[in-house]
Amino acid sequence: MRARAPASSANLGPGFDALAVALALYVEVTVEPAEHLRVSTEGEGSDLPADATHLAARVAAQVIGHDRLAITVRSEIPVGRGLGSSAALAVAAAAAAGAKDPLAVGARVDGHPENAAASALGGLIAATIVDDAAAAERLPLDPHLAFVVVVPDQQLATKQARAALPASVPHADAGFNLGRMGLLIAGLADHRRLTPTATEDRLHQPYRLPLFPQAARLLAGLVDAGALATSWSGAGPSILAICTAGTASRVAEAGAKLLDETGLTGQVLQLAPDYEGVQTAT
Amino acid sequence: MRARAPASSANLGPGFDALAVALALYVEVTVEPAEHLRVSTEGEGSDLPADATHLAARVAAQVIGHDRLAITVRSEIPVGRGLGSSAALAVAAAAAAGAKDPLAVGARVDGHPENAAASALGGLIAATIVDDAAAAERLPLDPHLAFVVVVPDQQLATKQARAALPASVPHADAGFNLGRMGLLIAGLADHRRLTPTATEDRLHQPYRLPLFPQAARLLAGLVDAGALATSWSGAGPSILAICTAGTASRVAEAGAKLLDETGLTGQVLQLAPDYEGVQTAT
Repeated sequence: MRARAPASSANLGPGFDALAVALALYVEVTVEPAEHLRVSTEGEGSDLPADATHLAARVAAQVIGHDRLAITVRSEIPVGRGLGSSAALAVAAAAAAGAKDPLAVGARVDGHPENAAASALGGLIAATIVDDAAAAERLPLDPHLAFVVVVPDQQLATKQARAALPASVPHADAGFNLGRMGLLIAGLADHRRLTPTATEDRLHQPYRLPLFPQAARLLAGLVDAGALATSWSGAGPSILAICTAGTASRVAEAGAKLLDETGLTGQVLQLAPDYEGVQTAT
Repeated sequence: MRARAPASSANLGPGFDALAVALALYVEVTVEPAEHLRVSTEGEGSDLPADATHLAARVAAQVIGHDRLAITVRSEIPVGRGLGSSAALAVAAAAAAGAKDPLAVGARVDGHPENAAASALGGLIAATIVDDAAAAERLPLDPHLAFVVVVPDQQLATKQARAALPASVPHADAGFNLGRMGLLIAGLADHRRLTPTATEDRLHQPYRLPLFPQAARLLAGLVDAGALATSWSGAGPSILAICTAGTASRVAEAGAKLLDETGLTGQVLQLAPDYEGVQTAT
């Protein structure tokens, strides 16, 4: 069976571990019976070992119960950049292996319910862990919105980004993020109400900034170029600009310039949201 | 001029200082020119001094620039119970005094932008303070929802409730509330998706429980009786049950029984949401 799942951008500023949006950039996984495990990969992530340790192989074997499988992975999703590549891969592999609930499998394997839910369901997602399982709900997403992602070539390990977070935070900062998250959910439902204030955050971005100091300039520069709001994408280092469809090209051009100006190499992607989530075909 | 504003229930579990819903229980304020300040009050809060220290008098004098006013206040909103009585009064007084932006005045005077915004705009509100001013947005609220509020006779000062909060909280608890708040916003937009999980909270209710230990029994008992979810209303001691219209009567009966069983006196209100916010008439 074949399955395709979209990339996702999580956190979106205040919505740390709670919000994600699916983006039209895909990984496709094919799983077929074989005499013994064969993994072949193309595109992004194809430098990873194509053997039993590959995430797609582990997920498919777990779903099916054995690993006498031929698995093909074709991915457009840059790895280790905060675009949910492993959650998308896990969801697509689970679906291609015939899992009844690819979201549950993907969230369990990847550990990020919001990325897995966006890849499985599409659109804008509120998600969290409840009783050790993913709980996810769709939220309204204004179809006038478009996304620009500045993707630096350097990777930033999620583990390292997680270790940068403090054990405790001021109560006022927790409240700050709740207040901004409400404004953000309203703004994502109606772009006319979305402002840069809505993606302000005090729970992760400021703590991670030393790992990727150029983020400050990128976040501000993309707003200056016309983005409605900007945030780190997942744990970075990609930076997400939330735009109207009409301004996305201008913001993308500014993104390329900002990469140059901050001494980075990388790519700038203009992406529509994905509203479909994981899709299977036999 | 005459103005009427609805009560509100803030926080709603995870949405500490960030969410509020307007409830169809009202305060009405009339402001007219007079030779010198006269304040007369009826209903809830009429035991407070009817003089220049009255909130309605202070707000009206501030808006108009002098206090040669005859002010009448008629309120159905119990005071000091977590139903936003002072925010509603401030918004109504500001509107009755001719303020162009009663929300801004009410939020500044009362200090709770989410209560003031619910009283000013009606419906379900996401609000917070941005640059010392209230920022507020409407969020979708399922018209099938109804509210039951258990209102103990005892008051709980907001100041005392605020002092019970810790200076800092575990980072994981801040994330916990963000995750629940996303689920709650989805559930309030569609009652079929609302579960008791969505109003779980780790930022205020657990810390305030020693001030009102009966809350635990009320919160759980109202869910047992059929409420979709329950939370403290504002800083308490009122407890809010979010219900479908069909189950509200049953939940209200259970609320009365729970008051008895926990040794409390008080009242149980069945309230529709208010969708209008502050209304003025000359």
